[in-house]
Parts: sequence; C-alpha cells; structure tokens
Amino acid sequence: MTASPVAVNTQRVIADLNALRAIGAYKTGVHKPTFSPEHMQSLDWLSRRFGEAGLSGELDGIGNLVGQSPKSGPKLLAGSHLESQSHAGWLDGPLGVVYALEAARVLNNDPAISGAVEVAAWCDEEGHFGSLMGSRSYVGAVTDEEIDAARDRKSGRSMRDALREVGLEGRPRAMVEPGRHIGYLEAHIEQGDTLESQGLKIGVVTSIVGIWQYRITFTGVQNHAGTTRMAVRKDAGLALAYFCVAVDERFPKVASPRTVWTTGRITLDPGAPSIIPGSAEMLLQIRDADVEVIARLEALLRSMAEEASTNGPCQVAIERIRVGAPAAMDGRIQDAVEAASGVFAPSKSLRMQSGAGHDAQILATVMPAGMLFVPSIGGISHHWTENTSDEDIAIGAQVFVEACRRILAAG
Amino acid sequence: MTASPVAVNTQRVIADLNALRAIGAYKTGVHKPTFSPEHMQSLDWLSRRFGEAGLSGELDGIGNLVGQSPKSGPKLLAGSHLESQSHAGWLDGPLGVVYALEAARVLNNDPAISGAVEVAAWCDEEGHFGSLMGSRSYVGAVTDEEIDAARDRKSGRSMRDALREVGLEGRPRAMVEPGRHIGYLEAHIEQGDTLESQGLKIGVVTSIVGIWQYRITFTGVQNHAGTTRMAVRKDAGLALAYFCVAVDERFPKVASPRTVWTTGRITLDPGAPSIIPGSAEMLLQIRDADVEVIARLEALLRSMAEEASTNGPCQVAIERIRVGAPAAMDGRIQDAVEAASGVFAPSKSLRMQSGAGHDAQILATVMPAGMLFVPSIGGISHHWTENTSDEDIAIGAQVFVEACRRILAAG
Repeated sequence: MTASPVAVNTQRVIADLNALRAIGAYKTGVHKPTFSPEHMQSLDWLSRRFGEAGLSGELDGIGNLVGQSPKSGPKLLAGSHLESQSHAGWLDGPLGVVYALEAARVLNNDPAISGAVEVAAWCDEEGHFGSLMGSRSYVGAVTDEEIDAARDRKSGRSMRDALREVGLEGRPRAMVEPGRHIGYLEAHIEQGDTLESQGLKIGVVTSIVGIWQYRITFTGVQNHAGTTRMAVRKDAGLALAYFCVAVDERFPKVASPRTVWTTGRITLDPGAPSIIPGSAEMLLQIRDADVEVIARLEALLRSMAEEASTNGPCQVAIERIRVGAPAAMDGRIQDAVEAASGVFAPSKSLRMQSGAGHDAQILATVMPAGMLFVPSIGGISHHWTENTSDEDIAIGAQVFVEACRRILAAG
Repeated sequence: MTASPVAVNTQRVIADLNALRAIGAYKTGVHKPTFSPEHMQSLDWLSRRFGEAGLSGELDGIGNLVGQSPKSGPKLLAGSHLESQSHAGWLDGPLGVVYALEAARVLNNDPAISGAVEVAAWCDEEGHFGSLMGSRSYVGAVTDEEIDAARDRKSGRSMRDALREVGLEGRPRAMVEPGRHIGYLEAHIEQGDTLESQGLKIGVVTSIVGIWQYRITFTGVQNHAGTTRMAVRKDAGLALAYFCVAVDERFPKVASPRTVWTTGRITLDPGAPSIIPGSAEMLLQIRDADVEVIARLEALLRSMAEEASTNGPCQVAIERIRVGAPAAMDGRIQDAVEAASGVFAPSKSLRMQSGAGHDAQILATVMPAGMLFVPSIGGISHHWTENTSDEDIAIGAQVFVEACRRILAAG
C-alpha cells in the first residue's frame, strides 16, 4: 500500500452519468424499466465504453453485461445495474456502474498496477420481473423454470417474451468462474439520510439487511354498503386498517432500533365504493440485519393474526412470501474502502448497514463482497427527485477507484 | 277497492327470471355490465315480451327501454334495471322488471281494469358509467355533456363509444311526459337481512337514504422502504389506516342507529412493496335518510382531518364527491303496497327505509313513487350468491301486481 493514489477523471464520471441520464430522461430522473428500449440503449452505451478499459463482453441470456480483461494479475469484479424503477432517480444503479467503469479505465490501463477491474451491469436489480434475477443468475441461483415463470409485474409480459423481443433469446447465461475474482465492490447512493444528516461523505457497508415479506389476507363477507347494518358487517378492509395500526403500535417493542417495516400495497376486494370489502390484502415487508429480530417479529405477527381471527369479525392469514438472509460484507474490503476514504474524505466515513437490497448481497454468496455509499440529498430514493451533489459524486469516485487499487494491490 | 285480487302467474314470473339469468350466467348469478352483449340481449328479451302486455317501445339514446300502452285510463309506470354489477346476483334489477312485466300482462289485458301498467328498464342503475344515468336521463337531469364525459369505470371506454357500438348513437332519449303517469312502483330484493331475520315477506319502503361520498387524500413523503428510518417516515398509507380506525371509533357517537358508512376503496401510491407510500386515497360513503345526521358526520369528518393534519406527519384532505338527497316514498303508494301484503302475506310486511339507492329515488322527483322489497337470503347482495327463495319471489309477485291494481283503481 505504498503507491500514491491514482488520478481519477471526476469530470468524465459526471459526464458519463449525465449521458446515461439523457437516455430515458424523466424530469430530473429517468424511466427505464428492465428491457425497455432505454434500458437496452444504456447497456449498449456501456458496452461501447468497454474498449476504453481494455474490456470485452456482450449481453448474456438474461441481460447481464460483464466485461472481461486479458490483463494478468488479480481481478476485481465491480458494478451495479442500469435499469431503473419507474419514474425514478438517475443515480440508483448507474452510479455504481460508472464508478466501476472509471476504476477499470484508470487501473487497467496503468502498467504499474497488477491486475484489473472487470465491470458488470446486472440485469433487473430493481425487480421488474423477479428478485435480483441478473446477479442471482450469475451465481447459479436462477433455474430456467424460474425464468419461464417470470412476468413483468406491471404489464404481465413474460420474461421469455421480453428476452426474445430484445434479441437475447437462446444466448447462454454468464456464470461466475470460481477463483477468477478476488472480490466484488459496488458503489451506490445511500437512499437514506444517515450520511447527509451527519455531514459525512462515504458509507462503508458492513452488511446488507435481509428482507422478509408477508402477504396478510383478511376474509370477511362482501355485502351491500347501503343495506347492511353496521352491527352485522364483516368488513375486511376495516380489519386490515386495525391490523396496520396494531403493527405500528406493537412492532417497536420487539424490533431493533434499525429494523424497518413497510406496508407498501393494500388491495380491497372488490374495491367498489358501494360494496363492503369481502376480502383485503396487504404486503408487509420487514428488514433487519439480524435474523433473530426477524424471527421475533414474525412470531409477533402470527400471534397478532391469531388474536384478530379469534376476536373477529374477520379471519386473518399470514403467508411469508419472501425470505432474504442478511449478507455480511467482507472485512478486508471494508478496511480498503475506509482507508481510501481516509485519503479523499478524512474523518468523513461511517461504517453502516444497508437497509436496501443490492446485487452485492448475491455476489457475497460466492466471493468476498463490499459496498460503498455516497450521500443522498434529503435521503430521497425511488423517486425522480433522488439526487447527490456533483461534489459528493466526485469524492465517491475517487474513494471507489482508490479502494479498488488497494484491493488489487493486496491481491 | 272492492274487486278481488287478480290471478298472477307466479310460475311464469320465475321462468322469466331464470330466462334472464341464463343470459350472462356466472355461477348461480350473472355478469352483465352495462352495454355488454348480455345486457343488450336481456333488453332484447324484454322488448320481445312487450307484445304480451300490449306494450310497444324501443331502446332510447341512453339505453332505456320504456314500454307504452294505448289503453285508456290511468297509467302506472313500473320497472327496474337489467344490467348487473360485475359477477353479481340474478335478481338485483330483473326482479323489478319481471314483476312490472307480469303486472302489465295481467292488468293491461284485463278489460275490467281501467288503465295500464307501463314497463321500464332503466339503463346503468349499477353505475358502470355514472350514477343512475338512465332514470336521471328520463327525468331530464342528464345533459349531453355529462354523457360526453362518462366513461366505464373499469375499462375506461367512453359512454359515447359504447352507445355507438350497441347501435344507439343518435337516437333521441325518452323523457318523462308530465301528467302521463299517476306514479312509479319498483320492486327489488332487500339486499339486507332485516326481513329475513324477522321472518317477514314484504318491505314497504318509506324512504331511500341519501348517499354522500368523500374522497379522503393523505399526503406524506414517498421513500425507500429499506433505507428510511421509522422515525423520519411520513407514510401516507399508515396515516390512512389510522384514519379508518378513527372513523370506526368516532362515527357511532354522532350517527343515527340507521346510518351506515363504508370505505370500499383504498389506493396507496405508488403501491409497491419496497416503497413507502407518498400518498394514499380512500373513498368513504355515508348513507342516511336524515340530512341533519349527514351534516353532523361531515362536520366530524372535516374536524378529524384537520386534527390529523395538525398532528402530522401526513396532510389529510376531504373532498365531497357525491351528494344524494334522501327521497321520501309516496304515502298512498306505501298504503297500497301494505294493503296488498295484507292479502298475500298477512302480518308479514314492514315499513322500512332503503339503505340502497334505486331508480325510484329519481322518479320520485317527478311523480309519486314507491318501492316494495322481498327478502334476501342471508342479507347477501352485490355478489353472485345473492338469492331469494322461489316462494318469496312468488309472494312478492302477487303483492306487487295487487298493489298495482289498487294504485290504478284509486287512479
């Protein structure tokens, strides 16, 4: 670790990010769902940059783009994703891809550096078709049957149809080569306000929380909103409202200070103003880096459902529909990111967990993985107003490239 | 009122209702939204029956079918509707139309009876395109502009397109002829359990409650469900759940024993499991026959919204989107229905209000109007399991025709 930091072209980084924003721009953000023309153009933009970093590679059979370097020495994998949530921010995904590209341009072309950074854009991190399908495919965790069954959550279009329409049908899927990479590093906007509220510049991610998701269904009796007396109603929507309030009141007593939970979707059936809902459904998501906490909350949830069913008038059923184990980030990679922060943002870094899911949690199952966060203005995320100052983007790029250099040097 | 009751063919009534059920059958109910092929076939079925009752008439420019009789003497208008809610019951609408048809067949063909029953099927009582559009058109309360703007709530298809597709574009709309009718009588299933729970057969409707509807919007801040700490969230969906519970707790103290209120639709925006809802909306409907009660409840609602906005973290706004004045049923028509019940179901009738809206409330604005209810099994309504026993259907038919005879005789 005696060499001095390499020169990062921060203006080029910001120009690249703006070039990607111009593809599928929506207000100050972007709209590029998985396999949309704008997503595919963004991938094409990246593949045309590969030459600048001595990389080669093409889209695989699930929409991943992974560049490979012929350079000798250790290889570090780095990247993120290029598709976006609907009408969302410009940095969620592209930041990590462009940082990785910049690291590859700087380090791969430097003969004094042994080894290379290889750049990946993982497909569908945002979950239009599934859950982290691209990176999971790369580590061998996606079967053909899962792809057969996957459909766009909004349009219902099958993933197979989408792959055919963008010309990827029949291509092989890129798979991890055991031993090829010494690790994986991903940069991302924080998507929260922890860094900004403390005037910090770099988050050194210690772990990525697990995500557990539950479908909670309420069964009452559908009836006419005018003729059914209040006393005899079994209103599934009202039962749901009471349950939401009970979760809000009782979870804090069992959760850890960092646990978060969210009801993001509520559906009443049939959903007509003159009909008492006969059934209702809510999706509840719980995130924590500690499986013990999750287990306690799930037990509470199930006891609350039993209690509500017993008290009536509606029946409440809990179904766990997603289980995500927390992923620990590699200690040596954390140290490298922190040391790099010491050069470009002295005393401005913080070790923290990631409340959001990222491809790094998948790569962590097959190689040492780490993440670096830059601040989000106002903590806003998954919205087109999501933003980070150019100054913070530049600092993050310098820290990222320096961290890559240190990881390769430690080989 | 000296003549003896006329002979009603109750088997024909039940056969006719089953013939209508066979058009667009769904399980034991029906699915015939306004202007669907099954709705149009049902109207065609009715128009082909008109001859049996000496009636003539054709579909007008909004889908109403009103038969006219050339017979001299007083004319009583009677009917209901033939379209259904989605996947709903077989009697909601057709019962009143077939009773009216049977009354017309029996009374119009009887030379001893002075006057005639004229049969109407009002379009879109179920509100696929608007609110009681057919009967409101007949009383002159629908402008061309309202039709221009009307769209199918589910498909978004414009009413003009629908009218064109079913061949009604450009036809004149039938309008009430002042002085032509001495009144309007409509039979309907109760859609509640008041009659059944007391072993009664006939409801004599005293008034139809008014319906007030409110759009209540909650504005918070949309954010990432993993990275936003619980303490800083402004979750519009959670604010909505608390408001629903508050309505349930506070309305009973201000409402009358017969008031009903319902939240039939809830929408979270954007409605994704990993995003904290930035805004949310609920439709709250209140029904009562007393405008004073409604006024008190609306005042409470507005004060609750102010309170919630002041306490935060979300803003709550109330918008009144529907005002329906209660409609009183004509006293003489009530008396005629009760007297007819005395013949076929002695001591088995009850004077009661209608919690549901009906075309009779619209006709009541231009002529004396009345309604008769038959029991609903289990009080179930707006669902395909909605039903009434054949025996109760038969008793209702006899009472209905006898009531028509008495109203015509009183002229």
